[in-house]
Amino acid sequence: MSELRKDPISGRWVIIAEGRSLRPGAFVKKNQPPASSAAPACPFCAGHEGETPLEVYTIRDPKTKPNTPGWKVRVVPNKFPALGQGLKLVKKARGMYDMMTGFGAHEVVIETPHHGKEAKDQSNGEISAWLRALQLRVGDLRKDENLRYVLIFKNKGKTAGASLEHPHHQIIATPVTPKRVREELIGAMEYFKLKERCVFCDVIEEERSNGQRIIYENEDYISFCPYASRFPYEIWILPKAHGIDFHTDVVRKSLPALAEHLKRVLGSMSDVLGDPEYNYLFHVAPNRFPRFGYWRTIENDFHWHIELFPRLTIVAGFEWGSGFYINPVLPEEAAKALRVKK
Amino acid sequence: MSELRKDPISGRWVIIAEGRSLRPGAFVKKNQPPASSAAPACPFCAGHEGETPLEVYTIRDPKTKPNTPGWKVRVVPNKFPALGQGLKLVKKARGMYDMMTGFGAHEVVIETPHHGKEAKDQSNGEISAWLRALQLRVGDLRKDENLRYVLIFKNKGKTAGASLEHPHHQIIATPVTPKRVREELIGAMEYFKLKERCVFCDVIEEERSNGQRIIYENEDYISFCPYASRFPYEIWILPKAHGIDFHTDVVRKSLPALAEHLKRVLGSMSDVLGDPEYNYLFHVAPNRFPRFGYWRTIENDFHWHIELFPRLTIVAGFEWGSGFYINPVLPEEAAKALRVKK
Repeated sequence: MSELRKDPISGRWVIIAEGRSLRPGAFVKKNQPPASSAAPACPFCAGHEGETPLEVYTIRDPKTKPNTPGWKVRVVPNKFPALGQGLKLVKKARGMYDMMTGFGAHEVVIETPHHGKEAKDQSNGEISAWLRALQLRVGDLRKDENLRYVLIFKNKGKTAGASLEHPHHQIIATPVTPKRVREELIGAMEYFKLKERCVFCDVIEEERSNGQRIIYENEDYISFCPYASRFPYEIWILPKAHGIDFHTDVVRKSLPALAEHLKRVLGSMSDVLGDPEYNYLFHVAPNRFPRFGYWRTIENDFHWHIELFPRLTIVAGFEWGSGFYINPVLPEEAAKALRVKK
Repeated sequence: MSELRKDPISGRWVIIAEGRSLRPGAFVKKNQPPASSAAPACPFCAGHEGETPLEVYTIRDPKTKPNTPGWKVRVVPNKFPALGQGLKLVKKARGMYDMMTGFGAHEVVIETPHHGKEAKDQSNGEISAWLRALQLRVGDLRKDENLRYVLIFKNKGKTAGASLEHPHHQIIATPVTPKRVREELIGAMEYFKLKERCVFCDVIEEERSNGQRIIYENEDYISFCPYASRFPYEIWILPKAHGIDFHTDVVRKSLPALAEHLKRVLGSMSDVLGDPEYNYLFHVAPNRFPRFGYWRTIENDFHWHIELFPRLTIVAGFEWGSGFYINPVLPEEAAKALRVKK
């Protein structure tokens, strides 16, 4: 059973997930050969539905049965969850420290039954389908009053943290608002207090008028290398219309545009950087504003977005210790290289 | 020339270090073979002094000349510095964004002339010598009024970010107080406001009375796996006496005890985890308190320390996106395995 522990100095919460435990010996072997790309061993491939927990949502041929082939997108609980809903949320003191039980959810959204078919090679319709699945799962998880945040993310490749190479996203829902999201929410709120404008909307304006860092723009979405990029070739994708949440009907209407946008940006990144491993994640509003304590302006000041970073450099002691990133590539140069050809 | 850029949402500063620039093609090759351990190619080995910038401090045989063999510890500027002192500190706006010139310092402390002699294999006297060099360099760099923080860190091994394997530490001095340090300073200050006690002193008390997470204790230092460890086998080393800075005369007297402590803890970590790659870093007070804005209580509420983490797991999208770490090893189990035998 996992638990959450709070650092008494920084206030940061950590998930101690014993179920995923690795004993000392497990760390000794290094430089293992990369896993074979042979599909038969993959529990996410069609025909291997029995190797995952039971599906919680699918887009499938109505003539087929749950947990059998015939699906296009399949959502299952993570087999080795960091957090789980099968236990009571209990909060308590332990000496001078604070803890809670590891209450939460951890799901896997399998994008396609085809093992090697990454987003850049999928059709816009295929991408729209898993985007819709993500929307529905977020909407469903937000109903649980004990969950304060739902984070969607993708790890592509071993060095990006993926343990399986079959294309998938993950969703983790947590009983506290994550620290980095909180920092953005507070930063955006402070900006709004000063200017009465959304900082993200202002950033879009600035990037459009400057133009140097823009990668691609279609009818509903814009992507650019942020001015203070932490990582080389870091990319942010923002909806051009102001909105704080991803799971809404307004966003649903723009999913085809988001699919087209993602496909082009991921395709360009792959071409320019040689199919790098990467992470991206969705930053949206927390589930319930009053609990976060900043509910008054959030509808106006926050703006959901995707942060994407290819894993090209190693984050070392300096970055961990200081929170101060060293980026060896000028964001303007990165954008120039990544820019989608019209 | 490098520059500092501020993210307008989170307020995080990033170093854009063009001098260290890597072009798109540079990222394409993966899984390069590990560098040969043959000493001749190493610019940090005795006899290769000409391959580094000129030394700024050494402990050497008084009969030998600067930048020749005969040294025990050697400090040189980083050949590819992230920040430099050879330019004026200028702060300005760029559209809606903020920037400063990349003013700062970046030095390398070469621990020993012997290529493969890691701290765990060095004598207590050898370790004390480079600890003293670190003290003196910090003291010297703090004299520059434009520098607000001096961070000491060590990257051991490729995956920990070391580009050279010869044992060395790095020092980066920055014109802003790094974000993570600020978070600790603010957390410690809030705790002091509430309790009128140092949170680190309280943590030491708690750990000693509980005992389960302690790894080693000698006359002046204590080390333990923190209650809310972010990483498996994370270790914090604290001076038992309250103090906010590392470069003081009080700490100088305890350097032999710190040397003995480090040697044992690093030795145990190496034995238990199979000589892992690792990072550690020193968290000390900022250079000038009034500038940080929290000068009134810091002498009482902060407590310098070392944070050490073997690089055993991959930090993926979830961690980056949320600031929420998933640690698969119970800190009590980690401490039990790492505990130094008496």
